[in-house]
Amino acid sequence: MSFEDLIRDIYQNIQQLEDRGETASYIPELSRIDPSNFGVHISTIHGDQFGIGNCYDKFSIQSISKVLSLILAYRILDHKIWDRVGVEPSGTAFNSLFQLEADQGVPRNPFLNAGAIVVSDILLSHLKHPKADFIDFVRTISNNTTIDYSSRIAQSEKEVGYRNVALCNYIKSFGQINNEPSDVLDFYYDLCSLEMSTKDLSELFLFLAHDGRDIASNKRILNERQSKRINALMQTCGFYDESGEFAFKVGLPGKSGVGGGIIAIHPDQYSIAVWSPKLNKKGNSYKGMKFLEAFTTRSELSLF
Amino acid sequence: MSFEDLIRDIYQNIQQLEDRGETASYIPELSRIDPSNFGVHISTIHGDQFGIGNCYDKFSIQSISKVLSLILAYRILDHKIWDRVGVEPSGTAFNSLFQLEADQGVPRNPFLNAGAIVVSDILLSHLKHPKADFIDFVRTISNNTTIDYSSRIAQSEKEVGYRNVALCNYIKSFGQINNEPSDVLDFYYDLCSLEMSTKDLSELFLFLAHDGRDIASNKRILNERQSKRINALMQTCGFYDESGEFAFKVGLPGKSGVGGGIIAIHPDQYSIAVWSPKLNKKGNSYKGMKFLEAFTTRSELSLF
Amino acid sequence: MSFEDLIRDIYQNIQQLEDRGETASYIPELSRIDPSNFGVHISTIHGDQFGIGNCYDKFSIQSISKVLSLILAYRILDHKIWDRVGVEPSGTAFNSLFQLEADQGVPRNPFLNAGAIVVSDILLSHLKHPKADFIDFVRTISNNTTIDYSSRIAQSEKEVGYRNVALCNYIKSFGQINNEPSDVLDFYYDLCSLEMSTKDLSELFLFLAHDGRDIASNKRILNERQSKRINALMQTCGFYDESGEFAFKVGLPGKSGVGGGIIAIHPDQYSIAVWSPKLNKKGNSYKGMKFLEAFTTRSELSLF
Amino acid sequence: MSFEDLIRDIYQNIQQLEDRGETASYIPELSRIDPSNFGVHISTIHGDQFGIGNCYDKFSIQSISKVLSLILAYRILDHKIWDRVGVEPSGTAFNSLFQLEADQGVPRNPFLNAGAIVVSDILLSHLKHPKADFIDFVRTISNNTTIDYSSRIAQSEKEVGYRNVALCNYIKSFGQINNEPSDVLDFYYDLCSLEMSTKDLSELFLFLAHDGRDIASNKRILNERQSKRINALMQTCGFYDESGEFAFKVGLPGKSGVGGGIIAIHPDQYSIAVWSPKLNKKGNSYKGMKFLEAFTTRSELSLF
Repeated sequence: MSFEDLIRDIYQNIQQLEDRGETASYIPELSRIDPSNFGVHISTIHGDQFGIGNCYDKFSIQSISKVLSLILAYRILDHKIWDRVGVEPSGTAFNSLFQLEADQGVPRNPFLNAGAIVVSDILLSHLKHPKADFIDFVRTISNNTTIDYSSRIAQSEKEVGYRNVALCNYIKSFGQINNEPSDVLDFYYDLCSLEMSTKDLSELFLFLAHDGRDIASNKRILNERQSKRINALMQTCGFYDESGEFAFKVGLPGKSGVGGGIIAIHPDQYSIAVWSPKLNKKGNSYKGMKFLEAFTTRSELSLF
Repeated sequence: MSFEDLIRDIYQNIQQLEDRGETASYIPELSRIDPSNFGVHISTIHGDQFGIGNCYDKFSIQSISKVLSLILAYRILDHKIWDRVGVEPSGTAFNSLFQLEADQGVPRNPFLNAGAIVVSDILLSHLKHPKADFIDFVRTISNNTTIDYSSRIAQSEKEVGYRNVALCNYIKSFGQINNEPSDVLDFYYDLCSLEMSTKDLSELFLFLAHDGRDIASNKRILNERQSKRINALMQTCGFYDESGEFAFKVGLPGKSGVGGGIIAIHPDQYSIAVWSPKLNKKGNSYKGMKFLEAFTTRSELSLF
Repeated sequence: MSFEDLIRDIYQNIQQLEDRGETASYIPELSRIDPSNFGVHISTIHGDQFGIGNCYDKFSIQSISKVLSLILAYRILDHKIWDRVGVEPSGTAFNSLFQLEADQGVPRNPFLNAGAIVVSDILLSHLKHPKADFIDFVRTISNNTTIDYSSRIAQSEKEVGYRNVALCNYIKSFGQINNEPSDVLDFYYDLCSLEMSTKDLSELFLFLAHDGRDIASNKRILNERQSKRINALMQTCGFYDESGEFAFKVGLPGKSGVGGGIIAIHPDQYSIAVWSPKLNKKGNSYKGMKFLEAFTTRSELSLF
Repeated sequence: MSFEDLIRDIYQNIQQLEDRGETASYIPELSRIDPSNFGVHISTIHGDQFGIGNCYDKFSIQSISKVLSLILAYRILDHKIWDRVGVEPSGTAFNSLFQLEADQGVPRNPFLNAGAIVVSDILLSHLKHPKADFIDFVRTISNNTTIDYSSRIAQSEKEVGYRNVALCNYIKSFGQINNEPSDVLDFYYDLCSLEMSTKDLSELFLFLAHDGRDIASNKRILNERQSKRINALMQTCGFYDESGEFAFKVGLPGKSGVGGGIIAIHPDQYSIAVWSPKLNKKGNSYKGMKFLEAFTTRSELSLF
């Protein structure tokens, strides 16, 4: 069965499933999204593309943006970035403040909120016009000028972001944040507010399936070693407290966001994005996880 | 360059490196091993084999045996095993007792000592002659009757095993151990005392590169789904506090032991075992890690 | 109102209260005690004595014995004992194993199980015939040869003592237990199995209201400094997770046990013991706490 | 020996001691204080007063103000205050954020920073003009109009208060702070910036030695039950991680501040204040602790 047929078939099966997830409620703006949205889009390194459902509708990618900010910071600092943030899975979310105490303000990995806040601090220190420079970077590597922030989402998250204020100031108290916490967080909320469609996402992340090079132009976005590191990090830390489960069920490096989006990479093959707003108990898209599990199982393209 | 030439070349380079590791000292018997031992052996699903250095010398595989006991328990309970032990990386070792409290005696994954103790308890409940049945299982799936326990090593570990006694009794206090703690631990020490060479290891684990089937006979040892799960677990949890680092540097599922051995699997390609007794600060073989990093980088066969 | 009238009056009031507590269930033998038992006994430094209810019935004093073993160890090591066990309240019980990790096997105070296990280890190292010597000590300082261990209770607690085995071996793994864990625990269970009546208790502990001297003979059991330290420890750490509440409601140094007994000391005045088997949610005698609160409030003899 | 002679004698002895403490450095303004300051002042319920050394010099009382804000909040909410903050000692400071997680944003006691921040939030909700009303309250109960805030100290602490911002926002994330975190903290820093002399302190706190009534006017500041509760809290929680040690060495309820001040209460007798800026490793005045230990030992007026 071709990728297209397979995706179409699985999409229809999952579409009919009772959705046992819940829309993220802690960010007010996110809870207003129509929960019946469901889109899938794949891009392969051979130039094939296929999308279905709400694959062209833009949504809030939330934590998926942590991969993008990490990539830009990684380009700037190269391996020195690992002095500021670790590369190991974190165990429970529950431990996050506790872990910061034990490790003196160095977050365990860049996909925890704590880690992404440190990455935001790094960008703030190195970019002239952080907000403009970052969106330029994302648009450039994706050849996609339609990608933008949502100030409405950023504002909505900021208004309830007490836990993030706590994290950022706690890290600052260990001397591991260089800028003013409020500036770091404002930028962090901007980063999390990026809106894209599954099509945008699968095209944007395809270079990670291609050893760090853009497909069309063959230009390097990351060197091979860096690209491998990002994939390894997505494999071990991309799904919060469900990273081990995802490695088994889907078997690909990936990253999810509480907006209901997931991006997954099959090195040397493709990148695939799914979107369905209702989340399982671990905070990952309920239908998105089901779709990807069925897709890698039936395509026999898990890494394992 | 062929696998053979590549392995030979890397072996010689690493051989000359200053070994910055330290032999495991907490188990007295292990500290007596000649630290200059260094062996490598690869087995491919196409039937190729190549070994170098001390590749035929048997050594204590220690925690690598946790994969074998898990496999046997998985065959017995199938997915019901995940009621007793989790599948998520653990964060720091440092948290282990604390995590057990939070999760009411369910260890986070089967490669933590706590998790392997629970797996030992499962085997003790389901096998008629646990010690004999387990070694039979290992010999059968490896077609290798030379594999055996070392009672000397088991005894040496038992004598200093206070932390393991603590773990086992703590889990028992939550009702998550069914047998007598001392029986569970005696069996656990037997399991950890298995001795094999890198050749034995690479041959034994090759079925995990072959979707769970033995190469020669094509007989199923695990079904495809189970085989994928074991590989995913080795990818996310196989190297203690250095699992994220290993996923990046080596990019393969694997498991290490404090005896200085490491097994790594490249699905659909090969299994490779290395042995060098001196350990880095995270408890993984210093030269073994260096070797595997160079091997997957130069062979361009990382999963990422 | 005289002490006698006051005690009689409060006793009758509390007797009529609905007992919202639960008998300790984790030690099977303890759960068989008649929950309607209720006894009170006071002894003053002026030689007055008064008891009511089941004040002459012996019961399992459990953790109250931790004060007695500490006193004997304190006599032996004097202030050097504080190298082995701390003097600070512990926060939640919930943290106990975690705290041991942070403090490298030194328990926060001698009234935690972990601390009492270390005290047992000290006694085991310094007494020729630990079990006989300890009971001799208790009988001598109390002039009471009827006090004895209950092997039935000791055995019953041992059979379910997995958490204590975990604690003792965990401490041993930090090198802070010198004897064999199983020997330490056997002795620990003996200590906890002491049986006394409220009369025995109030007489035995009266010397702590008298700066460490026996009332009748004026002989020193502890020096003044040591006696003050024991009282201070009972004030800050004597009631598990309810020490702050007890300091407020009762306002006296004291110690409770899961057998439903409580001893409280009013320096320079009296010692008072109560017994009622049903425990509140924090593990302290429900009626015992109510009685003592009423008694110190109405006698206006709280320290604060 | 009279109180005066005793205080004079001990003062001279301690004055000559090498001061092994260190001035608090984390608040820049505090580190500028002359470390040789040393003052003591006692006030008794019989109207006697005696001071020595720098007993009339005002200094930053810092955490001692946590008792005053608690008293005012306690007058407003009475026992309902314990729904918002606990009464148990905390174990290590080290645990504070962790404990908040376990207890869903309810700090363990009101003398932890977390607890005092919650008390500030309560006052902010109930006072019309919080800053003015609070200082009025303090001046009224002490009949002392010279007591005031130091805006310089408040500002200095605010500038480095990242840990407090973290605490306040973390508690807010559990819904346990009702006002804006920045408003709560501004008020909290004002409270901590109170300046008094040891004479001011001993006079102000004397009512706690008098069951809650002002000595001169006999007016109630707290009812007897409330006064007892405050004393019990100071006994069990007043000295951070050294509360157990203080209960033993000094044997009185008390509270210290990082400005080097300590207040201690002997119920039905006196209140005594000491000030010496250099702190021991636990953050309590080095000479202050030494003085009080000698004073209660030689006056034989410890509670135990």
